[in-house]
Amino acid sequence: MNEEQILEAIRPFTTGIGDDAALWQPSRSHRSAISSDMLVENVDFTRDAMTLQDVGWRAMAANVSDLAAMGAKPVLATVALAFPETLTLDEIVELYRGLATCAARGKLVVVGGDLSRAPALTIAITVVGEVRTSNVKRRAGGRPGDVVAVTGKLGAARAGLELTRDPELIDGELREEALRAFRHPQARVAEGRFLAANRNVTAMIDCSDGLSTDLSRLAAASGCGATVECVPLARSARSVAEAQGENPERFGLAGGEDFELIAAIRARAYRHVAARYAARFNHELLRVGVLRADLGVVWNGTPLERSGWDHFH
Amino acid sequence: MNEEQILEAIRPFTTGIGDDAALWQPSRSHRSAISSDMLVENVDFTRDAMTLQDVGWRAMAANVSDLAAMGAKPVLATVALAFPETLTLDEIVELYRGLATCAARGKLVVVGGDLSRAPALTIAITVVGEVRTSNVKRRAGGRPGDVVAVTGKLGAARAGLELTRDPELIDGELREEALRAFRHPQARVAEGRFLAANRNVTAMIDCSDGLSTDLSRLAAASGCGATVECVPLARSARSVAEAQGENPERFGLAGGEDFELIAAIRARAYRHVAARYAARFNHELLRVGVLRADLGVVWNGTPLERSGWDHFH
Repeated sequence: MNEEQILEAIRPFTTGIGDDAALWQPSRSHRSAISSDMLVENVDFTRDAMTLQDVGWRAMAANVSDLAAMGAKPVLATVALAFPETLTLDEIVELYRGLATCAARGKLVVVGGDLSRAPALTIAITVVGEVRTSNVKRRAGGRPGDVVAVTGKLGAARAGLELTRDPELIDGELREEALRAFRHPQARVAEGRFLAANRNVTAMIDCSDGLSTDLSRLAAASGCGATVECVPLARSARSVAEAQGENPERFGLAGGEDFELIAAIRARAYRHVAARYAARFNHELLRVGVLRADLGVVWNGTPLERSGWDHFH
Repeated sequence: MNEEQILEAIRPFTTGIGDDAALWQPSRSHRSAISSDMLVENVDFTRDAMTLQDVGWRAMAANVSDLAAMGAKPVLATVALAFPETLTLDEIVELYRGLATCAARGKLVVVGGDLSRAPALTIAITVVGEVRTSNVKRRAGGRPGDVVAVTGKLGAARAGLELTRDPELIDGELREEALRAFRHPQARVAEGRFLAANRNVTAMIDCSDGLSTDLSRLAAASGCGATVECVPLARSARSVAEAQGENPERFGLAGGEDFELIAAIRARAYRHVAARYAARFNHELLRVGVLRADLGVVWNGTPLERSGWDHFH
């Protein structure tokens, strides 16, 4: 296959391939936001645990989630893909279908990118979005006393990963919940925009590397520490952990890739924000702890190690 | 080394690392433009031919050039980097120094990105720029009869590549010219913006894969063909080709990576545009041929094969 044939095959999933650069008209009243991620086979994902369509979906969801954590609405994405000779045209199309399906769900378009050869399948995605200037949230705005909450229960994606390794662990509805969370995670774009629009939300980050690591990052950027009071777990996470004889909380603390948002919220406003959130989204904003002046993240009275993902450690 | 150490080491070359997404304020009267490229070691570059600093420079220049071809001014870049365990922290810093030096020259900032492991050193760059809506140039605007011109002489980068393989081919000033063109190519940002502002410039593309390939792309996108009348060659290209007993024109037609711009210009306006260009930039706009109604690109009466780079052919 040659480059023209590949471009022809992926054209249905993209707009604007043709020029080397793509154009858009940014909103006048907004800032633009950009985030880039690179995923490498057998480092960031393996194909025995999921289809290439799932790989594409998750790669796009991870980038969209980074924008959601700033309160931004995604607008467009570029995809640069490098792959070994063993990857077929059908497999490339499958990967793009996953990317494009996730993008369509988030109402963003894939506007182009690049193709190259590499020894390992490598996917680099850049997502551009927009956020009203006054709504921008960062990791760094939290203050001691702020309540820390998450946009949904944690650990289901980790449970799904465990199920791809040992499919007999659990079955039924919870099995489906876990596999769906692992294969087709949903970035919390609407929830991020809702929280970002509230002045009492002081900081946000997405939970892509596990609660302990990402809360550590938010707290450190905000110049404070945090106490974790509870780890709200998806039922499937509890069920898989129990089947494995594992501590269920570890799935939430170290699991990662749930792509829920972690938000710091002024204590006096927390109940009001949570009530409005529940009314708007028909699911609860879940309190996990508080920020405090002393550095470090503490759980059950003991300091939490960052237990998430570090490629280089 | 761990991720924090790497981020600390590359911090001097970037702004805004800290959040997963970076923000900027787009100009109200402009469109935004985006382009992404991925470079893989031993596919798109080799380290025996250049230092990692050169690799970084060229990777950035290639992306900036894609924006220049639309008439856009680069604003910011994200860099996603994946590398094998054998790459040292010093080498990562060297690569970033090259990226950042080229970016600084083009007045854009590196705002963040991503780090991962991979079997081969892989650099994915996304550049965002801005262009006045009325100035946007694409590949597709050319018409039969338009003059085709390039912003500078061709083939020096290819001559430089040959010199990295056989350093004895030529020496002196021409040797330096060729190696500089290969290692530190200059994207034609100011020239692209100047040409884009002129209504008589109908289409542009950058010459990254050789004149024959890139002119074929411009002509095909414009629904026409082209006749190449002459191939303006850098003196170093002619000199190296002669030392090798090669046809010098091939260095320009198939060489690539000179990052000159190819522009289609209304015939009646061509002399005026070229005169203003020469006065503004102190170097000549160089006529290479004309667009014509019949499809395909012809040189010396015979159809030109696309002789540039196709990763998958």
